[in-house]
Amino acid sequence: MKEARIQRVLDALKEMELSQMLIIDPLSIYYLTDVFVFPGERFYGLLLKEDGRHVFFVNKLFTIPEDVKIETVWYSDTDPVMDMVAEYVDKTAVLGVDKDLKARFLLPLMEKGASQGMVNASLAVDRTRGIKDEDEQKKMRTASDINDQAMAEFKKLIHAGVSEKEVAEQMLKIYLDLGAEGFSFDPIVSFGANAADPHHMPDDTVLKEGDCVLFDVGCIKDGYCSDMTRTFYFKSASDACRRIYDTVRRANEAAEALIKPGVPLSELDGAARALITDAGYGPNFTHRLGHFIGLDEHEFGDVSSVSTWVCEPGMIFSIEPGIYLTGDTGVRVEDLVLVTEDGCEVLNHYSKELEIIE
Amino acid sequence: MKEARIQRVLDALKEMELSQMLIIDPLSIYYLTDVFVFPGERFYGLLLKEDGRHVFFVNKLFTIPEDVKIETVWYSDTDPVMDMVAEYVDKTAVLGVDKDLKARFLLPLMEKGASQGMVNASLAVDRTRGIKDEDEQKKMRTASDINDQAMAEFKKLIHAGVSEKEVAEQMLKIYLDLGAEGFSFDPIVSFGANAADPHHMPDDTVLKEGDCVLFDVGCIKDGYCSDMTRTFYFKSASDACRRIYDTVRRANEAAEALIKPGVPLSELDGAARALITDAGYGPNFTHRLGHFIGLDEHEFGDVSSVSTWVCEPGMIFSIEPGIYLTGDTGVRVEDLVLVTEDGCEVLNHYSKELEIIE
Repeated sequence: MKEARIQRVLDALKEMELSQMLIIDPLSIYYLTDVFVFPGERFYGLLLKEDGRHVFFVNKLFTIPEDVKIETVWYSDTDPVMDMVAEYVDKTAVLGVDKDLKARFLLPLMEKGASQGMVNASLAVDRTRGIKDEDEQKKMRTASDINDQAMAEFKKLIHAGVSEKEVAEQMLKIYLDLGAEGFSFDPIVSFGANAADPHHMPDDTVLKEGDCVLFDVGCIKDGYCSDMTRTFYFKSASDACRRIYDTVRRANEAAEALIKPGVPLSELDGAARALITDAGYGPNFTHRLGHFIGLDEHEFGDVSSVSTWVCEPGMIFSIEPGIYLTGDTGVRVEDLVLVTEDGCEVLNHYSKELEIIE
Repeated sequence: MKEARIQRVLDALKEMELSQMLIIDPLSIYYLTDVFVFPGERFYGLLLKEDGRHVFFVNKLFTIPEDVKIETVWYSDTDPVMDMVAEYVDKTAVLGVDKDLKARFLLPLMEKGASQGMVNASLAVDRTRGIKDEDEQKKMRTASDINDQAMAEFKKLIHAGVSEKEVAEQMLKIYLDLGAEGFSFDPIVSFGANAADPHHMPDDTVLKEGDCVLFDVGCIKDGYCSDMTRTFYFKSASDACRRIYDTVRRANEAAEALIKPGVPLSELDGAARALITDAGYGPNFTHRLGHFIGLDEHEFGDVSSVSTWVCEPGMIFSIEPGIYLTGDTGVRVEDLVLVTEDGCEVLNHYSKELEIIE
């Protein structure tokens, strides 16, 4: 049980004039209760109520710790589970629901008249998860420390004749040896022109002199995710490559330099984008500047031109400008950053200087 | 475009008195259109209408083949996509929705009054997908043929001192070499007492004489999944092991022998369960007898005591009785079967005789 986190969600619900919410995202439930269940296609939910009489709905096939201080309703595959949920919902009030609640659970609740309507209330949970508390900040730092160390190891895997796949296949063991629990996402290893696709998956492409070597990688440690990108060059880097590398690095640093409480996230995107646009590569920066991250590798909340949020202490997100030249090359430089009381702490410490791998 | 399949779904919708349905399961859309998109968190939908004026909703970030003969509405991340969907829904009729449609898409449609209510209409698609047409039957046969061949190779990986993980790590290459596209699910390799957990994941357990060796494995070929379980013994099998093996094998064969059009699926489960119960192991057969399978490794529809479906030609499902003795051993024998006009075709041909691996 994370009482303080639950209270923050209840406060946010109150601002939305809601007295109850049905949460079904297993990571959100873990965040609030320390209980993790992977329910597959079965219903699994936490009903939060402003009076503190929360209710957990769990299929008998799963186990949860005995010391959970929340009333738990156990059901079996043959029970009418949504009838059981409806009994606990306050019929006289609106029900906030998780954005991911599926029609096969939502429609039966509606048909039973379980509440005075339903609204998507996920923002109450997602904004709370977006502000990391001290325990989470510590875990995020540790996960990024491991990622920094791993990057140094990954660089050593680079040599003439190696393929992207051969490099990628050695990464998991390196993370595990460094104490991580696994990947936070499938690693991106892109050589040369492959780096022009931001989501390129490692293939049989063999490294050749002058290629860029882009690693977009992350691990999970104590349940929290890291995510960092560095772009190296093999043997040599052309002047054109040096120019775009320098542009992307400066865009990354310009955005990070602006971060402090009160600054709109859209301004960070704007600053990085302006710098890249001024260098003539505006159309080649094809994605948002960053995304929130924590228990999930991509959490709700983004750093983009349409973001309406402002920096608040405890927010952790990525700053990852890029330039992509189709058929030619690509660069991305990405850190995770933590908004502090008066600025920002960059969680990644691996150098951003252009590095030639010999 | 698979016109015949779309017509079958429309016919099923008509029986449910529905004139329109919004489908969002990417595999269902692929099944009906040959178009596959992995939309992540973005909206992706196919609106089927009884008058044939179907509409596709696709984010501009994705690409679909140009020759799709369905009106396509492209939207960008900043467009009000659910407003766009609402414009195409018939406001004067009920809208059938996919069971997996999430609250963040469903609630906005409701608020806009897009239709005269919504009902979960997935059964129309799921029952259609449950009956495989000839093209699908052929692909399912091929995927199971590869699985049969792979099982013979997997057996060769077994030797004194090997661990479950070491065996499991060699499986993907074997499938790929046999022409498969990948696993249909993470392979289960269980030695000895680990086989008592039906969902055990390969770990560092090392094989020892007398252990059972349970392989629950499958691959994907041309998009279709295979799934088979065989249980072997290393060097020797105790009389107790032989007894439970024989019981499970007979339960598998008894169920398969009953299969023909018109037989309730619950009777198949009942026959296998009765045989295992008579042998004294009723409480140790802890799961349903089988599940449907096709484009997805677990499709809607199950072979269990509570199933209300009867066998129909073209259905493909698993028959997988098991006996699990916690802390001791486990056995499962699983085939995929195709219901034919007058009986059943077992898609797996790997022997079910008890085999000792020397």
